[in-house]
Amino acid sequence: MRDVAVIGLGITKFGELWDKSFRQLIAEAGSKAILDAGISGKEIDALYVGSMSAGRFIGQEHVGALVADCAGFSHTHIPAVRVESACASGGLAIRQGFLTVASGMNDIVVVGGVEKMTDVVGSEATNTLATAADQEWEAFFGATFPGLYAMIATRHMYEYGTTREHLAQVAVKNHANGALNPNAQFQREISIENVLNAIMVSYPLSILDCSPVSDGATAVILCAADKAKKYTDKPVKIIGSGQASDTLALHGRKDICTLEATVHAAKTAYKQANIQPKDIDVAEVHDCFTIAEILAIEDLGFVKKGEGGKAIDKKITTLDGEIPVNTSGGLKAKGHPVGATGVAQVAEIVLQLRGEADKRQVDGAKIGLTHNIGGSGASCIIHILEAM
Amino acid sequence: MRDVAVIGLGITKFGELWDKSFRQLIAEAGSKAILDAGISGKEIDALYVGSMSAGRFIGQEHVGALVADCAGFSHTHIPAVRVESACASGGLAIRQGFLTVASGMNDIVVVGGVEKMTDVVGSEATNTLATAADQEWEAFFGATFPGLYAMIATRHMYEYGTTREHLAQVAVKNHANGALNPNAQFQREISIENVLNAIMVSYPLSILDCSPVSDGATAVILCAADKAKKYTDKPVKIIGSGQASDTLALHGRKDICTLEATVHAAKTAYKQANIQPKDIDVAEVHDCFTIAEILAIEDLGFVKKGEGGKAIDKKITTLDGEIPVNTSGGLKAKGHPVGATGVAQVAEIVLQLRGEADKRQVDGAKIGLTHNIGGSGASCIIHILEAM
Repeated sequence: MRDVAVIGLGITKFGELWDKSFRQLIAEAGSKAILDAGISGKEIDALYVGSMSAGRFIGQEHVGALVADCAGFSHTHIPAVRVESACASGGLAIRQGFLTVASGMNDIVVVGGVEKMTDVVGSEATNTLATAADQEWEAFFGATFPGLYAMIATRHMYEYGTTREHLAQVAVKNHANGALNPNAQFQREISIENVLNAIMVSYPLSILDCSPVSDGATAVILCAADKAKKYTDKPVKIIGSGQASDTLALHGRKDICTLEATVHAAKTAYKQANIQPKDIDVAEVHDCFTIAEILAIEDLGFVKKGEGGKAIDKKITTLDGEIPVNTSGGLKAKGHPVGATGVAQVAEIVLQLRGEADKRQVDGAKIGLTHNIGGSGASCIIHILEAM
Repeated sequence: MRDVAVIGLGITKFGELWDKSFRQLIAEAGSKAILDAGISGKEIDALYVGSMSAGRFIGQEHVGALVADCAGFSHTHIPAVRVESACASGGLAIRQGFLTVASGMNDIVVVGGVEKMTDVVGSEATNTLATAADQEWEAFFGATFPGLYAMIATRHMYEYGTTREHLAQVAVKNHANGALNPNAQFQREISIENVLNAIMVSYPLSILDCSPVSDGATAVILCAADKAKKYTDKPVKIIGSGQASDTLALHGRKDICTLEATVHAAKTAYKQANIQPKDIDVAEVHDCFTIAEILAIEDLGFVKKGEGGKAIDKKITTLDGEIPVNTSGGLKAKGHPVGATGVAQVAEIVLQLRGEADKRQVDGAKIGLTHNIGGSGASCIIHILEAM
C-alpha cells in the first residue's frame, strides 16, 4: 500500500441552513475542495461520500450517484460510493477513499460528508438519530442518544468522581473555540453557569452538554502522496487509519465507561503511524455530548481512564494547553451534520497542519488526530495526519 | 494489487419471510458462508455489508455495526462497513470487500447483502424504492420505478421494434430457471399469455414484468487468492471489477435505451479481466423489470444495441442457449431483496463455476459475469469471475 495525502478541502458553514439543500451543500463543499486543490474535475477518479440517513432526512437514497450527479461528474461516469456508519459515516468515507488510493486503484479521489437534518419536523430528527442505536433493544423501548450518553455519564461520575462541572467545561472550551471559527454553528462563548442552568435533557446532560441538529457538508481531496507536491506546497499525509466495531447496544459491553471501538481503532492507527499518544499535537474528537469528549481523551490514551474530567479541569485540552482538543469548536459548537462530521474533523486537522487555522491555530502543530464515533460507540474511525 | 478469490457462500431463501427478521437473515447467510468456507470467525479481518434502506424499511441505520454485532463479531471488534448504492448496494459491497483484500489491508473478509422489505405497510415499499430515483426531479412528481422503466421500454419498442412478447419471454425464461432454484421466491413456470394478461402496472409492464418485493440475505467470503487453496478445492477468482455512475434522473441522459453506467463499468471489467463479452459462459444480470434484462445483454455487448428482444426470442439466453442469463431465476423469479441482490448474483456465479448449480448447471462454465444496477441506471457494478 502506498502513501496518501490530503491536497485540498472545502467546508460549508454548519448550522440551520434553511436556504440550502442537501445538493447545494455537498456541491459547495466539493467545488471549494477542487478549487483548493487546484485540480480539474476530470482528474478525479472516484467519489466517496458519507451520509447517515439521507433516506429519512430528505427521502433520498442512492446518495453516491446523487452526489456524483449534482457535483457534475455524471459525464465522466466515475465510481461513486456512499458509506454509512451512523455519525461516523464521514470518517468511514475518508477511510474507504484512503484505501482506494493506497491500493493503487485510484490516484485522486474526492471524499465528501453531508447531512441535511433540519428539513424534518417534530421529533423526527431525534428518532432518525436513534436509528444509530439498537432498534430492537434500545430505540424500541424509547432510548434516544441523550439518554444513552446520560447513562454513560452517570456511571463515569459514580466510578471516577467526574462532576457536572467537568462536563460543562468541555462545552465551555468548545464554545470558546467555536467563537474563533467562522464556519461554526455557534460562534459565542458560554459559561459553566450557562451549562449547569440550561434546561435538562437527560440528567446529567443539559441542552448545553449536547451537540446540535445541523446542516452542512465538507469535502477533501485525497491523492497519492508521491503526486501530491504537483498540486500543493502543503500536502498533509495520512499516516494512520484505524477502524473498529463493538456491540450496537450499550448493555452488551463489559464497561460502558470505555469505548472499546476507540481503544482498538486507536491501537491500529498508532501502530500504523508508529507514534504514541503523546506525539499528537492537536486532535478533533467526537464530542456529540460532553461526556463523549471525556471518554475520547481517555480511550485515545491522552490521559488515564477516569482522569478525563479532571484533565479538562486543568485545561490541558484548551487551545494553549498541552494537547488542544476540538479547536474547530467540536461537534458541540461547530455543529454536527452527522455525515459531514468525520470529514470536517479531517479538514480542521489539515488546516492546523498547514498553519491556516487563523485565530485558533495551534503553534507548531505537526501531527494531528481525528476520532469519529458512530452511535454510542459501536463504530469508531481514527485517522492520524502529518504535515509533509 | 493482488488477486482475490471467493472461498465460501451462504444464501437464505428469498421471499416474503414473515417469520425472519433482518438480523436473522444476515446471520443465517453469514453463518452458512463461514461454514461453507471452513474458516473460523476469528480469521475474518473485516466485514462489508450492502443494504439499500434499512433506515426506512426497519428503522435501523448503523447497519455495519449491527451486522457485525448480530453475526457475533463484536468481541473481535473488526471494522464493519455498510455501503449503499440503491439496488446495487450488494454489488458495491462485493467491490469494496474485493478492494480491501486486493490492497493487502485484509486477507479474509465477509461480504453480506441483506434487505427486509415486507415489514412496511401500504405503498411504503414502493415509496422507499423510489428514494433510489431523483427525489427532486422524479419521485417528487410521482414517478416510481415501474413508471421509469416503462418509459425506457416504450422508447425501446419505438426505436427497435421490441414487443411485449419479447419482454414477456424474459419473465418466462427466468421463471423457468427459478423453478429449478430451491431458494427462489417463485418456483413455478409461467407462460407468455400469463405475462401479457396479467394486471398492467405501467404500460407495457404488467405485474409479471416486474421483480417482487422480497426479504433475503446472501454472504460470500473473500480471500487473498494465494491463500484460497488452503480453504477450498474450488476457489473462484474475481478477475474483473468495474463500477460507473450516470445521471440520477432519466431526463439527463442522451439516450434512455442505453445505460451508460453499464457500458463504462463493463469496459473496465472486461479490460481488467482481459476478455471479450463472447468469453462469458454464464451471467447474472439486473432484471428488476423485463426490459432491464434486454438493456443489460445489449449494454454488456452480448448482442448489438436494439437486438436484445429478438435475441431473447431466439432463446440464446436460456439454460441451454449460447449465453445463459439469470440461471438463478434472476431478480424476477429468485426475488429482489435489494441490498442482497448483488451478493446473490455473485453467489450464483460461484455455484455455476464450482459446478454445484444442480438442475440449473451450465455445462462447462468457466467464466461468469454479474451485473448489478442501482435505480434506473445511475449506478452499475460488474464483476467477472473465473474458476481457479
